[in-house]
Amino acid sequence: MTQLETAMAILMKTFDTCAAGEGKKDSLSKAEAKKMLEKELPTLLKASKNPDEVDKLLKGLDFDGDSEVEFTEYVVLVAALTCACHGRCAKK
Amino acid sequence: MTQLETAMAILMKTFDTCAAGEGKKDSLSKAEAKKMLEKELPTLLKASKNPDEVDKLLKGLDFDGDSEVEFTEYVVLVAALTCACHGRCAKK
Repeated sequence: MTQLETAMAILMKTFDTCAAGEGKKDSLSKAEAKKMLEKELPTLLKASKNPDEVDKLLKGLDFDGDSEVEFTEYVVLVAALTCACHGRCAKK
Repeated sequence: MTQLETAMAILMKTFDTCAAGEGKKDSLSKAEAKKMLEKELPTLLKASKNPDEVDKLLKGLDFDGDSEVEFTEYVVLVAALTCACHGRCAKK
């Protein structure tokens, strides 16, 4: 696999692993999404000084308001975060 | 780094490496974008039977029509491809 294919595979595997827990297997429940963010993006969450940040992020993640995070919603979050990180790094 | 952080880092590094060639260092020229797609997504391009597919993909990538692919435009493509791959895998 190329580098980019590897990154895409990680994105899919991370979601599928987290979604495999409770409820529907093709979406993240609120608890699963919270667990995923805490496990996979600890640095980002630690950098935030607002303890409600995870809840806010989760609310923003669930675009269609069904309290489940679909794969597309998850990918949009990761894409947005990657752009934010890249912008910050590029400015340094 | 966690798995997700690794994937985000790969996305950034792949773009930066490809963009470092000719012209602007913070965007891909048409030639750089073509090279990047051929190097990083060979399986996808081989699966396509249309020899003009790379050109079409590139045209679609350059949303603001300036013939340069910005980081955001690149991330949107990768996100869309990842969703397409995930949908196809999930249906199997």
